[in-house]
Amino acid sequence: MKTPIITLLTDFGTKDHYVASMKGVILRINSRCALIDISHGVSPQDIREGAFLLTGACSYFPKGTIHIAVVDPGVGSPRKPILIETKNYFFIGPDNGLLTLAARKDGIRQTVVLTNKKYFLSEVSATFHGRDIFAPVAGHLSLGVTPASFGKRTEHWVELDRGKPKIKGDTLIGEVIHIDGFGNLISNIEKEGFSKFIKDRPFLIRAGKKTIQDLKRGYYEGKKNDPIALFGSGGFLEISVREGNAQKVLKVKRGDPITAII
Amino acid sequence: MKTPIITLLTDFGTKDHYVASMKGVILRINSRCALIDISHGVSPQDIREGAFLLTGACSYFPKGTIHIAVVDPGVGSPRKPILIETKNYFFIGPDNGLLTLAARKDGIRQTVVLTNKKYFLSEVSATFHGRDIFAPVAGHLSLGVTPASFGKRTEHWVELDRGKPKIKGDTLIGEVIHIDGFGNLISNIEKEGFSKFIKDRPFLIRAGKKTIQDLKRGYYEGKKNDPIALFGSGGFLEISVREGNAQKVLKVKRGDPITAII
Amino acid sequence: MKTPIITLLTDFGTKDHYVASMKGVILRINSRCALIDISHGVSPQDIREGAFLLTGACSYFPKGTIHIAVVDPGVGSPRKPILIETKNYFFIGPDNGLLTLAARKDGIRQTVVLTNKKYFLSEVSATFHGRDIFAPVAGHLSLGVTPASFGKRTEHWVELDRGKPKIKGDTLIGEVIHIDGFGNLISNIEKEGFSKFIKDRPFLIRAGKKTIQDLKRGYYEGKKNDPIALFGSGGFLEISVREGNAQKVLKVKRGDPITAII
Repeated sequence: MKTPIITLLTDFGTKDHYVASMKGVILRINSRCALIDISHGVSPQDIREGAFLLTGACSYFPKGTIHIAVVDPGVGSPRKPILIETKNYFFIGPDNGLLTLAARKDGIRQTVVLTNKKYFLSEVSATFHGRDIFAPVAGHLSLGVTPASFGKRTEHWVELDRGKPKIKGDTLIGEVIHIDGFGNLISNIEKEGFSKFIKDRPFLIRAGKKTIQDLKRGYYEGKKNDPIALFGSGGFLEISVREGNAQKVLKVKRGDPITAII
Repeated sequence: MKTPIITLLTDFGTKDHYVASMKGVILRINSRCALIDISHGVSPQDIREGAFLLTGACSYFPKGTIHIAVVDPGVGSPRKPILIETKNYFFIGPDNGLLTLAARKDGIRQTVVLTNKKYFLSEVSATFHGRDIFAPVAGHLSLGVTPASFGKRTEHWVELDRGKPKIKGDTLIGEVIHIDGFGNLISNIEKEGFSKFIKDRPFLIRAGKKTIQDLKRGYYEGKKNDPIALFGSGGFLEISVREGNAQKVLKVKRGDPITAII
Repeated sequence: MKTPIITLLTDFGTKDHYVASMKGVILRINSRCALIDISHGVSPQDIREGAFLLTGACSYFPKGTIHIAVVDPGVGSPRKPILIETKNYFFIGPDNGLLTLAARKDGIRQTVVLTNKKYFLSEVSATFHGRDIFAPVAGHLSLGVTPASFGKRTEHWVELDRGKPKIKGDTLIGEVIHIDGFGNLISNIEKEGFSKFIKDRPFLIRAGKKTIQDLKRGYYEGKKNDPIALFGSGGFLEISVREGNAQKVLKVKRGDPITAII
């Protein structure tokens, strides 16, 4: 029998017992689950960052994987708890946009509002739906309970503004959507959009006060302390410093522009 | 066959190879175990914090779960290694109070001093009983070895001072026992004791220099930068700032008072 | 059937989705694997630190465990991806010395350069071989694919300078090779070499500006704020401060000397 896989992404950090409580709840329902952490280091309440990390990791998991994500500033408020079934996966979490980038990328089949209390913990707090709603629903789903059992199908959910790059004359204007642990500046400029814009023309890339004249294939092609541009492992245009930290060298922060100019 | 579950809580951090060494030892004895981290971010040697996190998480796990906890400033000294069997769980760790809050909450059945070297690593260091004693004992326990096999039953063990709130005239005096990753100030005032003290009378809650006039149900009911009081997911009175950090706003630290005044 | 065990050690940190992507790739190939983190907190590009942590943990795992390690400043360059089969384990990672300390300790049987693209992800990036090469190779290896299937055997690989202690007259000169999360200063002086050098003669140990006159057995034998010397759980001479932080007390950093003088 295949091992059911459940991933977890939260902004809870790993010092507290919150993530472990969720895992305990899942295992109490189905002790056969493999539980895999995507990240618990999402900046507190940063839905956009959570969505980026979830989207980056989820598609590498086997078909049938259940992805729980909890970055949930509205916990306890009327924001809805949802389950999205996609072509290959299930996504469970708050209806605040956190799940939709990843779910759309895989192809949404149906979205269900979680209302059937039979599958929640017997007491649901107003502060921790990760433990009281999302974890037990994931546990029951991993046992074969159908999505429709958890509540009513809906056609309405919160979308996250994708923040796509814009074209303004000769310039493709993207922005830094994530800075990874190496200090790499990851933009929202995807390879396809970049190629379509640049065609075969010469170009410059600008990040902070730095102008870069070409694209590299890998980090090793850079010189020390000299920022390079390349398409990273997630398919996004990325500014990097070999064996260094582009964020520190360029003093750029999330939301700052990265542009390509022809 | 049910998957045996073993949780780990330590103050080892996750940069070093210490936790992984413990997991390797367990898996060498029983490769079928599911290993779940509760926290490895307990502040170094902070038994009280470890006990709080263990108590908060342990009861969500399935019956039969083995909880290993290692916050062990006295490792190598005459402090005893123990196994506590409770109504639903097993707790393994040093006899320094770390295990007793959680074990008492579940209901202690028996406590055994770990002396049977047959179940230890062949060489026991004076610096790392997590790897050399607690991990292998947990591994063997997960295979069905009975608690009595590991050593002699004892009726004496170190208790942790629970630090219960005190009543002084019109004031219920609690203290901050944990500050979580969101900066929420978690007190030792439990819902039941609070209700019993307040009855139906109006009250004020004080934390740092802030006075709060009512209880909220969830974080979302707060205004930005304005501390609120609520009973959190662990059942304790908690001071929180919506999408902010109560610790930073109130400049309160662990051990500082949180009081309710009628 | 025994659960296949795969460990992961990287310098990726745990905030990003990189480690989870690797785990997803492995589970897509073999969902029965148990995935154990050794560390993802290796300092960026610090091959030596990664090698130390891998060597410290790997031998506690069951025979047959597959250890993936990725600290890979040369990713995408001509540095080779390799698989080393040792007496008890398999090591998979870049050919930059990261694997060799651990592999040599266990006893190298054969080394294979990973060239068979059949076992890689269909698209191999120039920036993330952990996900595109090492993870899928580990997954297939866990299913029973033989080492020889992944590529051609080689007798040449990069060794890491072991940085062994030196003897200069009356002095055994070691250095700090790791500082753990407690601030313990771990040297490259092993028990055997120390004993052979000291014999039965009296000795002094020097670290920073501190001179220590004897060896302790365990941390608990120290006095607060007073550095002690002992052989730690990894078998190396270590400077420690009881319930304190030797690094902060002695202001010593990695690479600084620790010496024994007769």
